[in-house]
Amino acid sequence: MALIVQKYGGTSVGSPDRIKNVARRVAKFKAQGHQVVVVVSAMSGETNRLVALAHEMQKHPDPRELDVIISTGEQVTIGLLSMALKDIGLKAKSYTGGQVKILTDSAFTKARIVSIDEQNIRADLENDHVVVVAGFQGMDEDGNITTLGRGGSDTTGVAIAAALRADECQIYTDVDGVYTTDPRVVPEARRLKTITFEEMLEMASLGSKVLQIRSVEFAGKYKVKLRVLSSFEEEGEGTLITFEDEEKMEKAIISGIAFNRDEAKITVLGVPDKPGIAYQILGPVSDANIDVDMIIQNVSEDGTTDFSFTVHRNEFAKAMDILKNQVQPHIGAREVVGDNKAAKVSVVGVGMRSHVGIASKMFRTLAEEGINIQMISTSEIKISVVIDEKYLELAVRVLHKAFDLDQEDA
Amino acid sequence: MALIVQKYGGTSVGSPDRIKNVARRVAKFKAQGHQVVVVVSAMSGETNRLVALAHEMQKHPDPRELDVIISTGEQVTIGLLSMALKDIGLKAKSYTGGQVKILTDSAFTKARIVSIDEQNIRADLENDHVVVVAGFQGMDEDGNITTLGRGGSDTTGVAIAAALRADECQIYTDVDGVYTTDPRVVPEARRLKTITFEEMLEMASLGSKVLQIRSVEFAGKYKVKLRVLSSFEEEGEGTLITFEDEEKMEKAIISGIAFNRDEAKITVLGVPDKPGIAYQILGPVSDANIDVDMIIQNVSEDGTTDFSFTVHRNEFAKAMDILKNQVQPHIGAREVVGDNKAAKVSVVGVGMRSHVGIASKMFRTLAEEGINIQMISTSEIKISVVIDEKYLELAVRVLHKAFDLDQEDA
Repeated sequence: MALIVQKYGGTSVGSPDRIKNVARRVAKFKAQGHQVVVVVSAMSGETNRLVALAHEMQKHPDPRELDVIISTGEQVTIGLLSMALKDIGLKAKSYTGGQVKILTDSAFTKARIVSIDEQNIRADLENDHVVVVAGFQGMDEDGNITTLGRGGSDTTGVAIAAALRADECQIYTDVDGVYTTDPRVVPEARRLKTITFEEMLEMASLGSKVLQIRSVEFAGKYKVKLRVLSSFEEEGEGTLITFEDEEKMEKAIISGIAFNRDEAKITVLGVPDKPGIAYQILGPVSDANIDVDMIIQNVSEDGTTDFSFTVHRNEFAKAMDILKNQVQPHIGAREVVGDNKAAKVSVVGVGMRSHVGIASKMFRTLAEEGINIQMISTSEIKISVVIDEKYLELAVRVLHKAFDLDQEDA
Repeated sequence: MALIVQKYGGTSVGSPDRIKNVARRVAKFKAQGHQVVVVVSAMSGETNRLVALAHEMQKHPDPRELDVIISTGEQVTIGLLSMALKDIGLKAKSYTGGQVKILTDSAFTKARIVSIDEQNIRADLENDHVVVVAGFQGMDEDGNITTLGRGGSDTTGVAIAAALRADECQIYTDVDGVYTTDPRVVPEARRLKTITFEEMLEMASLGSKVLQIRSVEFAGKYKVKLRVLSSFEEEGEGTLITFEDEEKMEKAIISGIAFNRDEAKITVLGVPDKPGIAYQILGPVSDANIDVDMIIQNVSEDGTTDFSFTVHRNEFAKAMDILKNQVQPHIGAREVVGDNKAAKVSVVGVGMRSHVGIASKMFRTLAEEGINIQMISTSEIKISVVIDEKYLELAVRVLHKAFDLDQEDA
């Protein structure tokens, strides 16, 4: 008998029939003698509908009241799923985030979990109940409703699994696991049986949007065994996310090719090279709530340097405006140039740490196809390059093949 | 400066534009220096949508989980209205029933309010906030979400007004007050400037569905000054519901003609006249959750009596089935007969207590039109008759005229 936390996303609970399917899957685990906690998202489309309503009231909806509204999406799902479970003869009980209680800070629309009181859930599990918890939401210490931000249901699932010391946290999605790359781009892409937390972090942040990055960090921190599975396939073991040191087998050098299509790059040319300059450039961008991804600054020449970074394409115009009108005159840079047709491709793998030559193999492979590399950034377990967006698919395909990712692993 | 509780029903908050209208109306009261608490229902249609979803999960939805689901309707409205208030420059804060907290018993889908903690609301009011409270819902002492049953938002409004000792509780509806009868039947029907609580109780329960009867009882118990107003008209004083002993002026004898179209009557003939027989007849009906309205039993003759009662037309078939197949053989009655084309007409007025001749005037008026009276039931302040449904409109019109209700009162 194991204690399993299952998380189902919006698509998996997108209609009454799909909610019934979830109930049947839960029943299968119950029949095997397991204790099951189910964490659910809002039915697909519901959160968007509620956000749109809010925007009809205020151009910039009040964050506290927005959380009051959007948290109802998950609240409806927990009630419906509990009914579906009861309808097939199981004992079930729903909990909102506040009822659990999942205590968060007061950062409305992007709150962070502070603590989880697992006592009531545990009592219900002992009493043979399936416990159904609303993902994505919590309550601050003043009793205000908070939400964790989009994708926060994954975080709720992992956090509950951590609090209960669950044997496994299963994340059900519309894909059946983590792939070596996007199968829509490379048909030979394979599902990985395992991936390490660190690789998963790089894959998630680089655009393989299977899991919310915060939930993976959380799982790593609390050593929660995390598995990604398809909610639409009856069989299949998905992809298990592991701690590297628990791995017995020799890891493949590279686990996958991640990419991100909607990048824009911005370069500030002729920046006076003195302390604090990076902050003076990125501070105003960050103040405007624009997320910056890659940041590159090369060694200076003649007392000036060039400073580059990437942002999401949707925020390119806003970022360019800030740089040209606020930053450039202030710091006395020569010019600001940008390109919103960029894409990022990364090779990811913990094996890279102990293997030389990954970078040169990557660069040679791209060069052989005539693909120019515009920016390079590396970490312990990944190498990312920014290229012209039109070469994106080609780059992913040739890299996937060059690193033998189409071959079955041992 | 007064403290006013305003309650807006589902039609009044049925769209983003209507919610903005409510915000503007609240702003007018704030501009006059009043403190305002607003209680709102779910947007019209929302509760039905949620109930339908629940029924897709379970034929008889689990009551606890049903409350989890349907309480989200009001939760969305409080967020939206708070945003609309902020958008026009007011301070505003929303509260779910649980956040207030409105403590109820645990009778899911029909809970009763046990107590209200008004401290936070009062602090917000002192701090110049408009406080927006979700109607219809509360929380039991275990933290479960409860609802008060349909129309419960009126009850929430009155209960909050009682807890805060508000100067007035204003119920905004789609009518501009309480009328002497339904203007669709009698064009000469007049809006009453005042009506007593007792008359209102009789009017409400008899089918003039302006206010939920429980909220009127509640208002009477806690001496809350209640006013019915239209949410669609800018001006107008609505109808004030008063305590009789506060009234200075001579009351009219009759305040209005109430009626109920969808009645069905059932008579059990030849019932052995012995103790406990009424319970043996109505017990099984009540167990089947069928509401019984009028109950009439006349003096017995030859050791047997006839027992009649009325039910809602929708439950006629179910009630007849119970009586014929369970009750009749059990108690040894001669026959069960029924008619589902009945209607009830009542004259209501506190003045009736001290005036003789109301009943005879009513019966004579109906007789002059050839309308046969099938059943009669009386209370201190009303006389109800059951007649053939086809005479309903005629009966209401002639009674309205006979009691001079088309004449302006002093």
